[in-house]
Amino acid sequence: MQHIKEYVDQHKQRLLDELFELLRIPSVSADPKYKPDVLKTADYVAQKLRDSGADNVEVCPTAGYPIVYGEKIIDPAKPTVLVYGHYDVQPADPLELWKTPPFEPTVRDGKIYARGACDDKGQFYMHVKAFELMMQTNTLPCNIKFMIEGEEEVGSSNLGIFVKANKEKLKADVVLISDTSMISMENPSLETGLRGLSYLEVEVTGPNRDLHSGVYGGAVANPITILSKMIASLHDENNHITIPGFYDEVIALTEAERKELNAAPYSEYEYKADLDVAELWGEKGYTTFERTGTRPTLELNGIWGGYIGEGAKTVLPSKAHAKISMRLVPNQGSEKITQLFTDHFLKIAPASVKIKVTPHHGGEPVVTPTDSVAYRAAQKAITESFGKAPIPTRGGGSIPIVALFEAELGIKTVLMGFGLDSDALHSPNEKYDIFNYYKGIETIPLFHKYFTELSAGN
Amino acid sequence: MQHIKEYVDQHKQRLLDELFELLRIPSVSADPKYKPDVLKTADYVAQKLRDSGADNVEVCPTAGYPIVYGEKIIDPAKPTVLVYGHYDVQPADPLELWKTPPFEPTVRDGKIYARGACDDKGQFYMHVKAFELMMQTNTLPCNIKFMIEGEEEVGSSNLGIFVKANKEKLKADVVLISDTSMISMENPSLETGLRGLSYLEVEVTGPNRDLHSGVYGGAVANPITILSKMIASLHDENNHITIPGFYDEVIALTEAERKELNAAPYSEYEYKADLDVAELWGEKGYTTFERTGTRPTLELNGIWGGYIGEGAKTVLPSKAHAKISMRLVPNQGSEKITQLFTDHFLKIAPASVKIKVTPHHGGEPVVTPTDSVAYRAAQKAITESFGKAPIPTRGGGSIPIVALFEAELGIKTVLMGFGLDSDALHSPNEKYDIFNYYKGIETIPLFHKYFTELSAGN
Repeated sequence: MQHIKEYVDQHKQRLLDELFELLRIPSVSADPKYKPDVLKTADYVAQKLRDSGADNVEVCPTAGYPIVYGEKIIDPAKPTVLVYGHYDVQPADPLELWKTPPFEPTVRDGKIYARGACDDKGQFYMHVKAFELMMQTNTLPCNIKFMIEGEEEVGSSNLGIFVKANKEKLKADVVLISDTSMISMENPSLETGLRGLSYLEVEVTGPNRDLHSGVYGGAVANPITILSKMIASLHDENNHITIPGFYDEVIALTEAERKELNAAPYSEYEYKADLDVAELWGEKGYTTFERTGTRPTLELNGIWGGYIGEGAKTVLPSKAHAKISMRLVPNQGSEKITQLFTDHFLKIAPASVKIKVTPHHGGEPVVTPTDSVAYRAAQKAITESFGKAPIPTRGGGSIPIVALFEAELGIKTVLMGFGLDSDALHSPNEKYDIFNYYKGIETIPLFHKYFTELSAGN
Repeated sequence: MQHIKEYVDQHKQRLLDELFELLRIPSVSADPKYKPDVLKTADYVAQKLRDSGADNVEVCPTAGYPIVYGEKIIDPAKPTVLVYGHYDVQPADPLELWKTPPFEPTVRDGKIYARGACDDKGQFYMHVKAFELMMQTNTLPCNIKFMIEGEEEVGSSNLGIFVKANKEKLKADVVLISDTSMISMENPSLETGLRGLSYLEVEVTGPNRDLHSGVYGGAVANPITILSKMIASLHDENNHITIPGFYDEVIALTEAERKELNAAPYSEYEYKADLDVAELWGEKGYTTFERTGTRPTLELNGIWGGYIGEGAKTVLPSKAHAKISMRLVPNQGSEKITQLFTDHFLKIAPASVKIKVTPHHGGEPVVTPTDSVAYRAAQKAITESFGKAPIPTRGGGSIPIVALFEAELGIKTVLMGFGLDSDALHSPNEKYDIFNYYKGIETIPLFHKYFTELSAGN
């Protein structure tokens, strides 16, 4: 498709400048102190949708951060693609580990370093610019709707309400999302599933005040010690999760599924070298792809208690805290797992401490069909722009919206991600390759083209 | 001693005002940002010693914070008492738990609330004012030397060097320290032993960067999970410490010692009520007094890793840290225990992580004789001013200087503390009763009197 490459070439610099402007706004949804920036980001996205040619652009208020909506209906008879993305980003800390400031995008050997570069500003913005391209070159083949939210990194808690209330407005034939990764640019892939999530925070209280560890040490339960023992007991010696009933709904993969999954290129040596670990860790009897894509997990996302400043303080603290999240696989339910965890955690606590468990947010696991028109359209688009057919993979991450769409709107999702696992999502020095950014803008119009053609063919 | 009570009554307000002025200077030795305040405190103490009548007052520089020295030699033939104290204080955080600002002393029902009120500003300053009293009333019966340091809360690392270099200057017959507690004002007590200390910081490194817990979770060792498992393994099901060789040098108490120790008034009900815990925790087979006074312990003083901000972040962190301190009992050596811990901690670490252990500071345990002239002088002084003989107790805390003095100067220490365990040392809302402050100023001159008399009697 000559006109696509030409358009991208002609506007290369501007396409990058606009993304940089977006990346400079610190839209951290988890931290209230960034509220003005998150709101500013929503307005920026709305303006860019208008500039690109979208109609009925709105910044829709919710109980939390607003959802940006925009659309272009060229012909009600044509198929409609609903593009989902999120303009909020993860917190940037630990700041000291960033080589360049997280909110001042910096290019180093072809890569854009910034919080949100890949997750998800860099990726959803490709859709805005691909839309502009189709509008400017009069090649938009179908109807398109945009729904860009601002609470994905904190659980999309208001999106469900919005979707339920706007089923007509959001009516579409497929959801298209770029918020996942490919194996590599040489090995393009398409994700066919995502894990669900249960995220909780626990608080262990020992004595009612911080104590002198010399005066009371040895006679009173130390909440850090107790929390450590409780956390330690959550995985057995084979790294299976010990919460009763945790695996009850998990469906074992067939040998065929395992075969296909493990056929994707993987080098344990390179995987370990990239992370600089001498040994991998995981559930006994499963490969890395299976552990990250198809098995449920329980991870400690944060822990704190007592004196964590410089030097030494001989304190026996009153409280210890941890943030714990579980990734769920198809057939597991987020609310049920949250309940199982809570019941178990309270049950294993000794009488010497008090426990508080606070659920943060959840999301349901999904599997996307590989025989749908939309999936085949994505396959064709990627095959054409990369010159190689995509490998189907299972993603370890969670995008709660996908299950929500199936439940509320009855439509499937295509996960056409252009990121890389090495993009350091949620980590310091998050990056996105400029090559991938342009490649995405070039591939998206092909998806719309083939989705429209194949739909007509049906 | 009528003149003592009269003097204290006449100067009640000023004695309090001077202490408040001292408490207002935030001399936190652990945190470099308070350096100017710590230095200012040293100068304040030196000035007050001069004002009270001390000679040769100096602020002696060290590699760390200075040591304030002052003396009054009335007759080389008379006995000499060396008063030790420290003008530095513990960090005040968590600040949000203080009812009133830690460095703005506030009186609530007869108690002074401030960081350092009891540990140790309120207690060492009693000696400065008792000295003033003896000077003003011409009743100083012996020679007196003051050594007030500024690094006690961070391990007194430069005091040993200073003492070795100034053996002549510090020559004395006994060391007198008020930096410990009594059972209660109704049950005065004298501490006859102190625990030693080994304080370390550990760092567990998993992957070389923070990772997305969805993309990598389940396939890579989570340093928080590993650290928790390692911490959990340090105590067995009876809460015995599992470090090989840890108890080798511990001397078991005789039945007689246990009997005497447990004779002190104690109500488990009140102890639990005060701390608001449903159940105590500790080494199986020992009482609370034995656990805190005569048995070695291992406590977690702090832990941190991953995302500890507001809200949720799905990160699999690169590092997790903990501050761990062990209290040691007579015959255990701080350096040896630090080594045993380090060897064991490295040994139990799985190959999936890297471990760094950093020793912070240590101190040796001590037992003070109960048949010495000095101890008997303290008994007489307390009996006279409280109208009740003091109960001998074992202190759980550590004052490294005590062992240092025995080793370097060959003199014993008397631990004449006027604090209470409920004074919340090292905790928010640290307090010191005004009653105890005045009572201390009244009791100290009696110690000097009886120590001089009993020494002459020998």
